[in-house]
Amino acid sequence: MEVKIVKNILGDNNRIAAEINDLFTRKTITCMNIMSGPGAGKTTILEKTIPILEKKHGVRTAVIEGDIEGDDDGARLDRLQVPVVQLNTRGACHLSAPMVKSGLEEFDLDGLDFIVVENVGNLVCPAGFDLGEDFKVTVVSLPEGDDKPSKYPGMFLKSTVVLINKIDLAPHLEFSKDRVYTDCRRLKPDLKILELSARTGEGIDAWCDYLAGRIKEKQQKQQ
Amino acid sequence: MEVKIVKNILGDNNRIAAEINDLFTRKTITCMNIMSGPGAGKTTILEKTIPILEKKHGVRTAVIEGDIEGDDDGARLDRLQVPVVQLNTRGACHLSAPMVKSGLEEFDLDGLDFIVVENVGNLVCPAGFDLGEDFKVTVVSLPEGDDKPSKYPGMFLKSTVVLINKIDLAPHLEFSKDRVYTDCRRLKPDLKILELSARTGEGIDAWCDYLAGRIKEKQQKQQ
Repeated sequence: MEVKIVKNILGDNNRIAAEINDLFTRKTITCMNIMSGPGAGKTTILEKTIPILEKKHGVRTAVIEGDIEGDDDGARLDRLQVPVVQLNTRGACHLSAPMVKSGLEEFDLDGLDFIVVENVGNLVCPAGFDLGEDFKVTVVSLPEGDDKPSKYPGMFLKSTVVLINKIDLAPHLEFSKDRVYTDCRRLKPDLKILELSARTGEGIDAWCDYLAGRIKEKQQKQQ
Repeated sequence: MEVKIVKNILGDNNRIAAEINDLFTRKTITCMNIMSGPGAGKTTILEKTIPILEKKHGVRTAVIEGDIEGDDDGARLDRLQVPVVQLNTRGACHLSAPMVKSGLEEFDLDGLDFIVVENVGNLVCPAGFDLGEDFKVTVVSLPEGDDKPSKYPGMFLKSTVVLINKIDLAPHLEFSKDRVYTDCRRLKPDLKILELSARTGEGIDAWCDYLAGRIKEKQQKQQ
């Protein structure tokens, strides 16, 4: 009985995620679901990424911001002058496709190239829920330690890209990048890994180039 | 239907948590459930805390170590020569009372004063599951940012103590301790807040004094 209920919930989620994905195909929008534990730097990465995508690559971005409570992150991104919808899960530990669908209703999709869904800070649960995105990104940060891929494999297995953030703190921490690379590649050999510091800006250009490439690739496929 | 199922699961959890709590009362054991997001430093704090509790306060400790996968943390604590049980949740995002109950079967409870349950790294889900503990502790660390109490209130509301860890990194980060104190006190005025660095050892003695006080208090009540 329990299992049946869980399957129904996931079935609904997957059905709506597929609808969202179809919508993004029709509208030629690329969607990224960005996930991490609390405080790994998702919002700061977006604060640095979105203006470069706009100025250097002409990419028009909107953000769906997922938090349990409050609008701290939504307010931060709103300052970038891009469309932002703040979703509050009211205690739930991840975003679901129905939540994303309701958020999308707030946007004029015809004016967008790229939608970022910033998930709830949680290195476990968001991995289980597809949101209609084109790809998932997991952020880990140096202060969290180098054991995260081996301890939280689900998140990394579901991701296309891993960002190693806060590399500016390397002189003050013990952190083996080698271990992260080895553990990630053991889980998923083709996992793309990029290192950056959202605070200093190091590595952000390469990350934006990667995103712009994916967005362009989808646009060219549609033509 | 869904709600009923969830209630049954929580009902079972709470019934077993109450049984565990009774057992701890009969055995005069104090139990702490320590929680945080991934990489806030729970295990490192325990590595520093347990030897001081033993040497300075004569406290005999055992640890139930909760992780999704692997035994990294269990192996680290095993080096302290205290009884350690490693629980793997196999994907589940928190420990439950039945899991803790099965872990307790591995210990000789008559030789123990203090049991630490180190929860899965997750700042959301563990808050919803009592494990029979005497009190809950939430760890936040400076690199995670000062917005955690306002963004993840559930965890802080359920806790008796908040540890602010990695204070040695303060010179390299922007972090408002004032904001953490204000947000915590707004959520729960009597929340005890301690600052420490598990790496440098700063603040660890005061934290151990607090724990030893709680353990002694329970022992005196039982006499």
